[in-house]
Amino acid sequence: MSKGLTSRADDYSQWYNELVTKADLAEHSAVRGCMVIKPYGYSIWEKMQAALDKMFKDTGHSNAYFPLFIPKSFFSKEASHVEGFAKECAVVTHYRLKNDGNNNIVVDEDAKLEEELIVRPTSETIIWNTYRGWIESYRDLPLLINQWANVVRWEMRTRLFLRTAEFLWQEGHTAHATSQEAVEEAERMLEVYADFAQNWMAVPVVKGIKTPNERFAGALETYCIEAMMQDGKALQAGTSHFLGQNFAKAFDVKFTNKEGKLDHVWATSWGVSTRLMGALIMAHSDDAGLVLPPKLAPIQVVIVPIYKNAEEFKQIGDIADALIAELKAKGISVKYDDRDTQRPGFKFAEYELKGVPVRLAIGGRDLQNGTAEVARRDTKEKMSVSREGLADRLENLLDEIQQNIYNKALQYRDEHITAVDSYEDFKRVLDEKAGFVSAHWDGTAETEQRIKEETKATIRCIPLNNPKEDGACIVTGKPSAQRVLFARAY
Amino acid sequence: MSKGLTSRADDYSQWYNELVTKADLAEHSAVRGCMVIKPYGYSIWEKMQAALDKMFKDTGHSNAYFPLFIPKSFFSKEASHVEGFAKECAVVTHYRLKNDGNNNIVVDEDAKLEEELIVRPTSETIIWNTYRGWIESYRDLPLLINQWANVVRWEMRTRLFLRTAEFLWQEGHTAHATSQEAVEEAERMLEVYADFAQNWMAVPVVKGIKTPNERFAGALETYCIEAMMQDGKALQAGTSHFLGQNFAKAFDVKFTNKEGKLDHVWATSWGVSTRLMGALIMAHSDDAGLVLPPKLAPIQVVIVPIYKNAEEFKQIGDIADALIAELKAKGISVKYDDRDTQRPGFKFAEYELKGVPVRLAIGGRDLQNGTAEVARRDTKEKMSVSREGLADRLENLLDEIQQNIYNKALQYRDEHITAVDSYEDFKRVLDEKAGFVSAHWDGTAETEQRIKEETKATIRCIPLNNPKEDGACIVTGKPSAQRVLFARAY
Repeated sequence: MSKGLTSRADDYSQWYNELVTKADLAEHSAVRGCMVIKPYGYSIWEKMQAALDKMFKDTGHSNAYFPLFIPKSFFSKEASHVEGFAKECAVVTHYRLKNDGNNNIVVDEDAKLEEELIVRPTSETIIWNTYRGWIESYRDLPLLINQWANVVRWEMRTRLFLRTAEFLWQEGHTAHATSQEAVEEAERMLEVYADFAQNWMAVPVVKGIKTPNERFAGALETYCIEAMMQDGKALQAGTSHFLGQNFAKAFDVKFTNKEGKLDHVWATSWGVSTRLMGALIMAHSDDAGLVLPPKLAPIQVVIVPIYKNAEEFKQIGDIADALIAELKAKGISVKYDDRDTQRPGFKFAEYELKGVPVRLAIGGRDLQNGTAEVARRDTKEKMSVSREGLADRLENLLDEIQQNIYNKALQYRDEHITAVDSYEDFKRVLDEKAGFVSAHWDGTAETEQRIKEETKATIRCIPLNNPKEDGACIVTGKPSAQRVLFARAY
Repeated sequence: MSKGLTSRADDYSQWYNELVTKADLAEHSAVRGCMVIKPYGYSIWEKMQAALDKMFKDTGHSNAYFPLFIPKSFFSKEASHVEGFAKECAVVTHYRLKNDGNNNIVVDEDAKLEEELIVRPTSETIIWNTYRGWIESYRDLPLLINQWANVVRWEMRTRLFLRTAEFLWQEGHTAHATSQEAVEEAERMLEVYADFAQNWMAVPVVKGIKTPNERFAGALETYCIEAMMQDGKALQAGTSHFLGQNFAKAFDVKFTNKEGKLDHVWATSWGVSTRLMGALIMAHSDDAGLVLPPKLAPIQVVIVPIYKNAEEFKQIGDIADALIAELKAKGISVKYDDRDTQRPGFKFAEYELKGVPVRLAIGGRDLQNGTAEVARRDTKEKMSVSREGLADRLENLLDEIQQNIYNKALQYRDEHITAVDSYEDFKRVLDEKAGFVSAHWDGTAETEQRIKEETKATIRCIPLNNPKEDGACIVTGKPSAQRVLFARAY
């Protein structure tokens, strides 16, 4: 607490790492690549979960739970899927430890599994193997299921929330009678994700589709939302996949359609993860700490008493009690920090670091004047306000802050979409300004790969409803019918 | 659906297995010992989670998340813990698969972990290793944390919900400055569990402590709640452990107390799991299917239209719409089943199987008379009631059903506590009547073990506030100061 954060300008990456740990969001665990999500960080994730879960249910989905382990052979059934996922994974090979006689705990070689189990990196295979038993006819469709779970992808270079070996996520897996319905579902869930990012996280996103190269392993189409961080790097915040009949064919899931004919089922999957925490932190926070949008802030208002004696402390406490009751009645989460072990200045810094949207200080002069000092975390403005009607004002202020945080992120994002028409400009913008670069591309994987190797920029997406525009690929000069969005990305 | 369930009298175990799968609660997965929790079953678990989570938060706890994997060496640090847990477990030994050149996916031997990772069977070790970095002084205490997670204990003989290799649970892990505070916490959480079992699950429980033999591996005291199933077998529904300083010593977690002296921290842990689903099912259900207490029923009221023509269907639909709005305003979950692909009788059987507490049927005569037919799932009573004030009546009825289900289970439980004073009677009661048997025991592990081997009955608990009573051990005749509760158990 005493030492400030590294500034974003000095070292953005260091700033992020320090912020995540100092604001008590998460820390590295004793297990390589796995994080501990601390209570304050987890309470933000819980708010995200609650909002998303409601959105999923409002769109007709139910939750279920599938096994953590997937038999190795399942991965071989969908050819492109195994390439994408079965490589870097945690493999369970034994089911028992034993004492070796010298008081060492060792793996019991007698307890070797006949078939190794993979800790799920994603659950398409085990779920579609299960769906085979659940789907017989069109009456069983659509099947709209979501799972909240932990998954593991062995990562060599990890960063808290952004890339960890184990992470928490939700994965939707739906089954449909027609291709069109499945495509509509994939698009619907992309809209849900975009809605959540914008209206809860206050993070503007570009909705688009991935190039074949960047598609989910096993998908015919991958939809994504792409966000822009304050260092000009993009972050993929959520994906939704149209899987065609790939998994239904791999796991032999057929249904009888209305005409009485057998056909393979059509599929989607879609997911967001604790990676969203990284996006939330990086999109809004500043050199003093977290800036949280009120809708996801575990504490929306904190009240700090500033008193000279027990009498003042008591009077302020009474005012706080009444205000807390009013705020709680409005569904606003509020904390009264009456610790006598810390000075107000220490508390102010702590709540700044933790991104509490509104801080209220009540002191001796406020007692006389019937006022309170209101400080906004987003703009750092302070104002003395009357205590009359304060709860209503705070309610409005939280809405205003939510909107302002979004507007600020939107402005930054919009200022960081740069159209270029030459490879030189492309590289210059990436190095000097960063952000999204909108450029013509010839549509080939070769050119995409060359650009990635030479500049570390990838095609983030082909935006939905992208305007058509005749142009020439910035690298090969070949004709192109539309611009696509490039960026260096997390 | 068409075939009825095996009756409880014919084969209780078979009845349970059929009920779990036919009522769409869960099924076995392709992974040995792991279950799939289906949407209907999961929605009950979600209601349990929501109620428990609120109770945990109301008692000052926060949620957090710790790694799925635990380094093997961590288990060796607490001697009795490793005996209890590190044996039957899933061991991760490698972190990569590869293609062997013949299109087989095989484990990459070059990717062997230096230290094996255990998939958590419980998280004391990884959590106390983490707490070392979080606790410095008494100001950091108490630390009151809960985790919702999946855990794995390799089981050879599995049963859906009751004993599965992977299960879902919550595990609370708290740290305290004094032994007394830790004991109070363990007792507080036992009360929370008992409250939940009785007031939400409608399952009466005996609160007690375990004998040393049955204690959690690493605990100084294990508190438990024990429930009674309809076959006279007991089921341990939740445990809360006073861990003393065992884990603090094993992981070197010390704090500076108010006097400025270093001391090891005092600990508790406590958990309930998806096993509660098994208890819920077995405590109340009957030969027609599930009987769910309204507070945990995903659908509390179902409305089935019975119509001869489109006009009647429309009129009933209008009545249903109005009633649904009223019920929803009261927070009652209601489903209108207007499927035209199934006959009313089929629907009635389906909702009986699924344990929906109240079924409403509205037919042509009801249209004329301003009535509806209300059927209770618990008593199977049907009554024709006026539609005026129906929502209020249903609200009261749901409360009444909740209470009735509890009363019925309580009566059964109370009728199945039998005091005996000889080993002969003990064995006879176990075989002929089952239930809890209250008997004197000499307090030795040897006698406890002998009884277990000879009768398969274990000491379920020494009830809290157990009356003192001089007596003689039913096996050895040695003096005993109190009766304890034995039973055969799940």
